[in-house]
Amino acid sequence: MTPDDAPADAGERAASTSSLLPFFRPQSVAVVGASRDPLSIGYRLIESLQGSRFAGTIIPVNPNAGEIAGLRAAPSLSAIPGPVDLAVIAVPSSTVLSIIDDCAAKRVPAAILITAGFAETGEGGASLEARLREKVRRHGIRLIGPNCFGLMNTDPSVRLNASYTPAFPPPGRVAIASESGGLGLAMVGAAHRLNLGLSAFVSVGNHADVSVIDLLEYWEQDPATGVIVLYLETIVEPRRFRLIAERVGRRKPIVALKAGRTRTGQRAAGSHTAAMANDNAAVDALFSQCGIVRAETLDELLALASGLSNQPLPAGRRAGILTNSGGPGVLCADRCAAEGLTVPDLSARTMSTLASFLPPMAALGNPVDVIGFATQDQHARAVETLLTADVVDALIVLHVSVRAKDNGPVAAGIEQGIRNARRAAGREKPVYICWMAEGDRDRTFTIDGETIPAYPLPEMAARVLSRAAAYETWRRREAGRAPDFPDIDLAAARALCGKALSERGPGWLAADETRGVLAAMHVPLAEGQVATTGENAAAAAGTIGYPVAVKLASRRLVHKSDVGGVRLNLMDERQVRQVFEEIRDRMKKDGTLDDMDGVLVQPMITEGVETMIGATRDPLFGPLIAFGLGGIHVEVLGDVRFRLAPLTDRDATELVKEIKGYRLLEGYRGRQPADLQAIENVLLRISRLVEAAPEIAELDLNPVFALPPGQGCLVADARVKVG
Amino acid sequence: MTPDDAPADAGERAASTSSLLPFFRPQSVAVVGASRDPLSIGYRLIESLQGSRFAGTIIPVNPNAGEIAGLRAAPSLSAIPGPVDLAVIAVPSSTVLSIIDDCAAKRVPAAILITAGFAETGEGGASLEARLREKVRRHGIRLIGPNCFGLMNTDPSVRLNASYTPAFPPPGRVAIASESGGLGLAMVGAAHRLNLGLSAFVSVGNHADVSVIDLLEYWEQDPATGVIVLYLETIVEPRRFRLIAERVGRRKPIVALKAGRTRTGQRAAGSHTAAMANDNAAVDALFSQCGIVRAETLDELLALASGLSNQPLPAGRRAGILTNSGGPGVLCADRCAAEGLTVPDLSARTMSTLASFLPPMAALGNPVDVIGFATQDQHARAVETLLTADVVDALIVLHVSVRAKDNGPVAAGIEQGIRNARRAAGREKPVYICWMAEGDRDRTFTIDGETIPAYPLPEMAARVLSRAAAYETWRRREAGRAPDFPDIDLAAARALCGKALSERGPGWLAADETRGVLAAMHVPLAEGQVATTGENAAAAAGTIGYPVAVKLASRRLVHKSDVGGVRLNLMDERQVRQVFEEIRDRMKKDGTLDDMDGVLVQPMITEGVETMIGATRDPLFGPLIAFGLGGIHVEVLGDVRFRLAPLTDRDATELVKEIKGYRLLEGYRGRQPADLQAIENVLLRISRLVEAAPEIAELDLNPVFALPPGQGCLVADARVKVG
Repeated sequence: MTPDDAPADAGERAASTSSLLPFFRPQSVAVVGASRDPLSIGYRLIESLQGSRFAGTIIPVNPNAGEIAGLRAAPSLSAIPGPVDLAVIAVPSSTVLSIIDDCAAKRVPAAILITAGFAETGEGGASLEARLREKVRRHGIRLIGPNCFGLMNTDPSVRLNASYTPAFPPPGRVAIASESGGLGLAMVGAAHRLNLGLSAFVSVGNHADVSVIDLLEYWEQDPATGVIVLYLETIVEPRRFRLIAERVGRRKPIVALKAGRTRTGQRAAGSHTAAMANDNAAVDALFSQCGIVRAETLDELLALASGLSNQPLPAGRRAGILTNSGGPGVLCADRCAAEGLTVPDLSARTMSTLASFLPPMAALGNPVDVIGFATQDQHARAVETLLTADVVDALIVLHVSVRAKDNGPVAAGIEQGIRNARRAAGREKPVYICWMAEGDRDRTFTIDGETIPAYPLPEMAARVLSRAAAYETWRRREAGRAPDFPDIDLAAARALCGKALSERGPGWLAADETRGVLAAMHVPLAEGQVATTGENAAAAAGTIGYPVAVKLASRRLVHKSDVGGVRLNLMDERQVRQVFEEIRDRMKKDGTLDDMDGVLVQPMITEGVETMIGATRDPLFGPLIAFGLGGIHVEVLGDVRFRLAPLTDRDATELVKEIKGYRLLEGYRGRQPADLQAIENVLLRISRLVEAAPEIAELDLNPVFALPPGQGCLVADARVKVG
Repeated sequence: MTPDDAPADAGERAASTSSLLPFFRPQSVAVVGASRDPLSIGYRLIESLQGSRFAGTIIPVNPNAGEIAGLRAAPSLSAIPGPVDLAVIAVPSSTVLSIIDDCAAKRVPAAILITAGFAETGEGGASLEARLREKVRRHGIRLIGPNCFGLMNTDPSVRLNASYTPAFPPPGRVAIASESGGLGLAMVGAAHRLNLGLSAFVSVGNHADVSVIDLLEYWEQDPATGVIVLYLETIVEPRRFRLIAERVGRRKPIVALKAGRTRTGQRAAGSHTAAMANDNAAVDALFSQCGIVRAETLDELLALASGLSNQPLPAGRRAGILTNSGGPGVLCADRCAAEGLTVPDLSARTMSTLASFLPPMAALGNPVDVIGFATQDQHARAVETLLTADVVDALIVLHVSVRAKDNGPVAAGIEQGIRNARRAAGREKPVYICWMAEGDRDRTFTIDGETIPAYPLPEMAARVLSRAAAYETWRRREAGRAPDFPDIDLAAARALCGKALSERGPGWLAADETRGVLAAMHVPLAEGQVATTGENAAAAAGTIGYPVAVKLASRRLVHKSDVGGVRLNLMDERQVRQVFEEIRDRMKKDGTLDDMDGVLVQPMITEGVETMIGATRDPLFGPLIAFGLGGIHVEVLGDVRFRLAPLTDRDATELVKEIKGYRLLEGYRGRQPADLQAIENVLLRISRLVEAAPEIAELDLNPVFALPPGQGCLVADARVKVG
């Protein structure tokens, strides 16, 4: 991180975090809009608070009702004698603003606004929401919502269900924030069945004030929270999100389901949140850089929450698989391999131990198949043996019910085996169960207070293990840094861009301007001379030495090769002159001769791997740095990956390794490997440039020839767009 | 299909199919190894037959027991007075062969062998299984198993549960064959909960006699079966499987979960089935060619079974989505788009109809969000409106439970809406429900006898719709044909290969042999001359005309470019001579000069798109034809697709379109498109060649330059391996 991006200092952070305390640990909660009608939300809010046995005071507020659900109602907030820590508001949207004024008068520090009809409904609602935000900020009131269904804190000393669903999850280490009310309800509802303990739940609604980022900071400090789970439809302040999430993620895993991967999905999200859509490549980059575990479906989100909150992180990627039937073992092994896990061979000793007590038809490889009628004791001993085997970092136990009455003994055997292994070897390795037992699908496994997650599909267990291993790898690595380059001249680069922008307005820089910008950044650009006649071009080629490349120089036509404007491997004067004519004739024929600034004559670069480095600017995420192999094939195949600027050295290293074509850079089939350090260096310099120069809208270095190690790399063509 | 691959004639087919009738429609079933011990499989088999209220006679066979489960036992098969149609055998493996002899003596036409301990346990078991197979084939007894858990037929006039699980699925249109007992149990067990009606279920075990292919042919004729579901770990006779599956698939969808995608998974499968592993690319090719719907997980397999058996196939790919909460709508829309479905805008008229009865905060786009508290009637009208809208081909209805007590009315509303739409517009469009209601997860939906599949995840509904649409597209297309090429000389091609093989043994053909083979097939190979000295090379280049390409000619070194053996764009004699020296020097330095047959001098091909066409021979699947873009980038990125030979014209067209790089062939960024017909023609000729010439072990045409339409294509380099 560069110094100006440093996170808010500790004091500010503490202030922000403590401002959320009244949401999670209020002494008194007023329900504004409480009602006697059992179908109303105002009634259900009271019912939920009572149902969770909230440890503080509940005060219904209703101008007409004397008593609601056995509680004396106050006619207004101001009529409440003592202080109010939290107001839960469910009144028509037209009266919300005046209720906020009441909150201010009563000095209520925090409010949850259930009421819908704000930004999610269109322009009128958005303007009402803007006034709401302005008002709460002016009064210093923190607000969750609007358009949300509430908040829960399961801490046994609090037991707060400030929501309109009566479902109150079991206590545990997972904190959830959801941008979708419906999916939030589904998650809270499933928690009991899945034995998924929550520390807290927040339906963030339209997040007019309190955002997911605020919650990340709060949960970072919350000792009850060990894993943070997010359902997101939009990332409003991605740069701040990145800073906070990366910091929080080093202490506690963050798991996110981000909707709106496709334009269709983004449009669907827009139709009810009125929030801006995020580019999926940018989201992927952001999540990679922050170590956020991205879930693909709601099921997977909950499976990951359970796996990460209940089990230790694996020290490596070697999976042991124990099954009582071949098929599930094969499916699990397949998915392990597809997810980059290994399913190692067991040692001769482990196999002979297994052979000593398993039925003769058992398979002793990995997966170990104890076969369908294995006993409780056989299960226990097999689980213990495999979980304590040196070659595995984690254990997946698969069970398909063969006889319903065996389920109990088998489950007991599995639990016994884990208990024995834990006692013998500590709680170092994660264990996940896949329990496929019709009629007994919701069985939960708890051993000496430890929950073993149980999933319905073998693939899910493999997926959770792989994600846990990837997170652990991310967490263990040193944090990267964005190096400072003492040799660069940012002022010069910006001056060139600024000048072009003020003289000609938005558009592409001329070849010499581009050259100047890259020179100021010490990015190695292949030499080249612009020539405006065939004669000059041939003279330039003579100076440079044959063979040469001749390329159309144009500030307007960006896809030079599309108009035949890139000609390689020219061997002599005659060819150079001829090519100049051909390019000019083509431009003339196309009626674009005015766009031709001349031609660029360059030496042919014949060695190295062709790559590309680019930068674009996302309206929300800021600059995105792209890396891929060069050439049209790669363009069509889309093997390009992204990172958000500012890039750290670690980001650059990972970005280069992440493309599928990385094998070419390693030296494929006897070819020379590429100077990776040099590529990374250019990536970091370009990141620095686009961070510092907001004038640059787009930048494209393509091709960049990566020479053999120690020889650097060479940008053969570059274009920079200012705007 | 070539004539010699023509399917077995109708008579043979009928004979094979009718030989399976005793399995599915027996009048009398003998359980050999029946036992009084309630824990034994022999007892449970009787219990299952009684539990399903089997319509025929059940005869326990046990030398010692007079009565088992209320039935009089026979001491042996021969002691049974009447005929026995089906023997279900659960005796120790050591006595199995003699029981088969008893079956023969009693003229039992069909046997299900539950007993394990055969090929799945290793060599000894495999040899026992071989003897078993030989014996049943000699006696003309059809055998299911060994190592299986049985068979079921739900036909109300049969009600056969010849298995050791008491679970008996509801009747319906889905027939299942499973190679895994455990997953079979899981599927049968889940059927009731998922409201998935089965016509039949077969646990095929080690399929020593009756194979999945036999079952495909049986179910093809079975009027009760509408969809065939397979769990496969191996495909034993892929060529026969392809013929049968493609024929059956045109009438009834086949859905398959094929385990062993990865080597790790294949190893795991081998550990308990002793069957050969299948290459995943070959399996994908096979499934594409037969229209088999490939499921990724067990959940998806069952979801597809339910979707395809209960709903009509969609006429197109336009999905309507109706939801009561934004989040699930976004997830569903995202997945639809990712799966190649569209989520079209609704007409102004449809939107105004929706607006006339939906709450004001509802979202009227697609997805339509009726919002959380929509009533039964609003659901009914919204479902009917969307399902009858012209712009949608299918409807997905998503429901997240907001209040538990609303679930019933909402479900009734959805059903009412579908009923109304069906009555108004017929049963043309498929409907799928995603029902996310904790505490009410297993709700089923049936309207006038029609089951509407209900899934737990929005993504699953989208996935089923996309697979159904893809199957319908496949099914509607005309069947392809493998054209006969009157101009080819297969005998000449084979003679060249045979000669090389007999003279030098397995290995690569020399350049002139390769040229001869391709010439015999009328595959256009770029001209070229082999030269053994620099002088000759220069002379050849002079004849051909500059620029030229010079390539190492070697029968042994196949990756010429790895040793600097491909040099392009040579402009004059001097360069050609120099390159010859360089190649020779490199070979000398590497100590491989003996491998150098000389150099091949060719004209430079400077236009067209570089592609590759290859063929390999899978030990099980036979020849596989590969197609991809040429060049090392593509090789590293793995954008290559496969089809099994013999290729039909349709296969060739699809193969070319399937690669990611297809856009380049269409004419990317102003470049000329490629002569697709010419590429397809070469693919078909190569398929014909490798089909007819078993001497060819491998063939690689790379690069093949695809010239502009009408100009054909040109193979620039080719190698053929005989073996």
